Amino acid sequence: MAHVGFIGLGNMGLPMAANLAAAGHAVSGFDLAAANAEAARAKAITPAESAAAAVANADFVVTMLPAGPHVRSVWAEVVASAPKSAVLIDSSTIDVDSARAVHALATEQGIASLDAPVSGGVGGAEAGTLTFMCGGDAEVFARATGPLEIMGSRLIHCGGAGAGQVAKLCNNMSLAIAMIGTSEAMNMGLKLGLDAQTLFDVMSTSSGATWALTHHCPIPGPVAASAANKDYKAGFSGSLMLKDLSLAQEVAKTADSASPLGALAMQLFRMHVNAGHGDLDYAAIVKTLAGETA
Amino acid sequence: MAHVGFIGLGNMGLPMAANLAAAGHAVSGFDLAAANAEAARAKAITPAESAAAAVANADFVVTMLPAGPHVRSVWAEVVASAPKSAVLIDSSTIDVDSARAVHALATEQGIASLDAPVSGGVGGAEAGTLTFMCGGDAEVFARATGPLEIMGSRLIHCGGAGAGQVAKLCNNMSLAIAMIGTSEAMNMGLKLGLDAQTLFDVMSTSSGATWALTHHCPIPGPVAASAANKDYKAGFSGSLMLKDLSLAQEVAKTADSASPLGALAMQLFRMHVNAGHGDLDYAAIVKTLAGETA
Amino acid sequence: MAHVGFIGLGNMGLPMAANLAAAGHAVSGFDLAAANAEAARAKAITPAESAAAAVANADFVVTMLPAGPHVRSVWAEVVASAPKSAVLIDSSTIDVDSARAVHALATEQGIASLDAPVSGGVGGAEAGTLTFMCGGDAEVFARATGPLEIMGSRLIHCGGAGAGQVAKLCNNMSLAIAMIGTSEAMNMGLKLGLDAQTLFDVMSTSSGATWALTHHCPIPGPVAASAANKDYKAGFSGSLMLKDLSLAQEVAKTADSASPLGALAMQLFRMHVNAGHGDLDYAAIVKTLAGETA
Amino acid sequence: MAHVGFIGLGNMGLPMAANLAAAGHAVSGFDLAAANAEAARAKAITPAESAAAAVANADFVVTMLPAGPHVRSVWAEVVASAPKSAVLIDSSTIDVDSARAVHALATEQGIASLDAPVSGGVGGAEAGTLTFMCGGDAEVFARATGPLEIMGSRLIHCGGAGAGQVAKLCNNMSLAIAMIGTSEAMNMGLKLGLDAQTLFDVMSTSSGATWALTHHCPIPGPVAASAANKDYKAGFSGSLMLKDLSLAQEVAKTADSASPLGALAMQLFRMHVNAGHGDLDYAAIVKTLAGETA
Repeated sequence: MAHVGFIGLGNMGLPMAANLAAAGHAVSGFDLAAANAEAARAKAITPAESAAAAVANADFVVTMLPAGPHVRSVWAEVVASAPKSAVLIDSSTIDVDSARAVHALATEQGIASLDAPVSGGVGGAEAGTLTFMCGGDAEVFARATGPLEIMGSRLIHCGGAGAGQVAKLCNNMSLAIAMIGTSEAMNMGLKLGLDAQTLFDVMSTSSGATWALTHHCPIPGPVAASAANKDYKAGFSGSLMLKDLSLAQEVAKTADSASPLGALAMQLFRMHVNAGHGDLDYAAIVKTLAGETA
Repeated sequence: MAHVGFIGLGNMGLPMAANLAAAGHAVSGFDLAAANAEAARAKAITPAESAAAAVANADFVVTMLPAGPHVRSVWAEVVASAPKSAVLIDSSTIDVDSARAVHALATEQGIASLDAPVSGGVGGAEAGTLTFMCGGDAEVFARATGPLEIMGSRLIHCGGAGAGQVAKLCNNMSLAIAMIGTSEAMNMGLKLGLDAQTLFDVMSTSSGATWALTHHCPIPGPVAASAANKDYKAGFSGSLMLKDLSLAQEVAKTADSASPLGALAMQLFRMHVNAGHGDLDYAAIVKTLAGETA
Repeated sequence: MAHVGFIGLGNMGLPMAANLAAAGHAVSGFDLAAANAEAARAKAITPAESAAAAVANADFVVTMLPAGPHVRSVWAEVVASAPKSAVLIDSSTIDVDSARAVHALATEQGIASLDAPVSGGVGGAEAGTLTFMCGGDAEVFARATGPLEIMGSRLIHCGGAGAGQVAKLCNNMSLAIAMIGTSEAMNMGLKLGLDAQTLFDVMSTSSGATWALTHHCPIPGPVAASAANKDYKAGFSGSLMLKDLSLAQEVAKTADSASPLGALAMQLFRMHVNAGHGDLDYAAIVKTLAGETA
Repeated sequence: MAHVGFIGLGNMGLPMAANLAAAGHAVSGFDLAAANAEAARAKAITPAESAAAAVANADFVVTMLPAGPHVRSVWAEVVASAPKSAVLIDSSTIDVDSARAVHALATEQGIASLDAPVSGGVGGAEAGTLTFMCGGDAEVFARATGPLEIMGSRLIHCGGAGAGQVAKLCNNMSLAIAMIGTSEAMNMGLKLGLDAQTLFDVMSTSSGATWALTHHCPIPGPVAASAANKDYKAGFSGSLMLKDLSLAQEVAKTADSASPLGALAMQLFRMHVNAGHGDLDYAAIVKTLAGETA
């Protein structure tokens, strides 16, 4: 059994930490929101007074935070308080510059670190079936597999510091584009008289298939688990997708890499979010594309 | 054994007709290009002098032609010459208006008809594993399954007249968008230091997965059968994808359906084709996106 | 004084015909809507029973109709009824194929013809300050200047049959793109704390200046005559701009000409119109871009 | 006569500084490139050993540098060396965050400052006809008009710290979009048989007019001074336009402001630059749009 310090007990962090605790690890958790700390106690997580306290005896530290500046700020505390023997794992989705900066911060203190953003959403976090995309030394990745395998079902070592974030952003940019493409195609087919199930049957088994279609079909009906069948209750919200698309564009710029559809996807999500639909599941972009603004 | 009249013996039509002949049907074939007729003879297809001659005794007629105007022109001959008992099947990918017009032409003559465009490319045509997306009466679809099952492994009845074309265009628009999205994501990841196999491993098993990635990965390496490993030798050419994207935009317009990514995908393929790359496999769009103009 | 047959007495056609009548011409007008004919009478236009009757003795025929099919249908009547000595002028904005087809129709009957779409909107029609972009023989253009100069202040001979329509579509595609670009820039500046007048002062006198900004500024304030100061009451409606952008894309396709911004502009206007804002002035696109859907 | 310290004597900075010297000011110049310092001497500018030396006795300091990081670094030196009575003017085009940061740096030292990016290009710099878009206190703007009026013919006070940069980016984003829109329209018209002069005559006098067309017409012929007539020798290079579009997207993101055409314009310029055309005048984007890759 290991000691795990877990910082950030929100929608994603709480079930991840709960799975670690359920597997028998001693989890000390911290979140700025007191309510989250209370919820954590119900999941056998020991609330800590501060980030520093949470990580003081940790074998592993996991951070799950909203954006780069939060991670930079929390890691500044963490590297000062965690044992030199700990492995620090950031599972937030953040900009690559911040990811590399906190790696450097840990390295300066002689502490091993990993960027390890996830895919799979709240459902995957609860079920312990997340995919972890990891950046850092292969040896550190090997040391971290224990706790990661409890929270996820698929671990991928993507390369050096920051490579996990890059892989995550590549994946999510592809997802956003595929979701919009799928939505445009289904909107068009529906308007021309096909029914949703037929469109799904054709596209899901043909060359136009995308994970977005087969798992998150944006039109109600064909995929039972899709948010489309729950009035687009998120799931993975449009605002979060916009955040990831913005990070992807930022990263693309640092590499002078052209991504016209990625840029347009970001703009469409920005218009969608600005029109007040950011809290809905990202699949609700289908309604903005269809001109349904209700 | 049935008599089949087959018009259009090009890259797609010839292997489709050859499979019908190999299955024991009496296939009478016609193509405007004399060379194609000669190639047909070698596949046990009997060359006919004209479209009218090819269909004179046919139980089934299959047309496989480049575009709507060709189909309109050939069907005008066919409905005048084929027996009233025949089933006419158009497997070309054409505009929905033309598809509906030739259905009407056949109906006026009391002849059953089906629009049945395919996906699967030349490989699927040769292997007899095409997907047929069919529009027309359910009863006509049922009568046509015999020959269609020889040429394809998946038959889908999509709805009434023209529904097969609509489904095909929805699918291919989704495919084009997914291919460009996949290409942008991989270009970005590569420029940021990830290797192609890692990117493929992450994206193919995560939410960013697309059929375009898993079957036609645009970067050489991960998918052995991809055109990317054969200097982008088509396969499904960029020019043909541009044709389908143009048809999709035309159809979207008739339905007032918004498709911003579909429109931009078409424009990117038009720029790519105008720059001289139309004969390459459509996956070569990855190189135009990367600014590689060689 | 000449006899003019005028077909199409809507928002544009009526004031154009009224200016001809006010200048002393004998104008015989026809419109499918009876109410328009009544309005015409009040402007000294003699209502005719039919298109054929309106043009029977005409020296000049002017048609001002919604789209290509209307023009094709009306000109079929007109060429059968108008004197061989007449000059037929179509001032509708229509697809280039239709424009060329009706030229051919007239030529077959030995009647001179001109495509002469306009810019300037209802205001220009009323003031007699339209710009006419003309396609057809130079000699026919010369013969038509008399009536055109009454309705417009600027006549441009653009080339042979259809060239007027091409020029009009080039112009309006540029206008739509400029309006959206101007709107994006102003939205951004406003959100970042600049005021509308300052933005206008900078952009209207610098390299970012566009006619769209200086005449139709989409933000209320700087340009008194802009629809932005009248709750975006059209003026030139978003639906009409969408129609022109669609025609432009259709024409671009026939020429294999890439227009990525033109395609995206069309899609944005389609989303805007589908969301219910098509009757507003086209400058209202600024609100859809800003995520204001009220 | 005033003492002016001028940092950054490149294509833009040198003629600006030379105009100050020609007007009788004592200009002390510094540039990291020794060759630039030599060129400065020929223009009656006294080369300084360092930025600090150049500003030691300055009444005014002008910086003209490539990007935000350079400005931050140089201003750190400048605020430590310049007299408290000096007015610091940054005429570089940089990100708004950096502009505001260096304002803050000066304010901390009790030194007045202005962001004052320009439009007008090298030609405007040489002729002393630049437009200055200024951000900062009105009182500081008033103090700076003396030297600014020598270098430019139009001074606009846009608002507080950073407002000059915002205005500049709004303007240049509008310019880039207008240039691409103009290029698409002209490419389309040319392919459809109109000649360049006719297109220019129509569009320059109609609603599709843009400054980009009337001053930098991307097709050779109609505008004598356009780079199009000099094999697209810059002028204002595509790489610099890409830089400005990137800054605009960055600023748009901080304001959550949607700019779909701005985003696509940036992507098209990135593809154009990545394909090797970045050194050409930005009007050369017309050739990439036309598929001409030579």
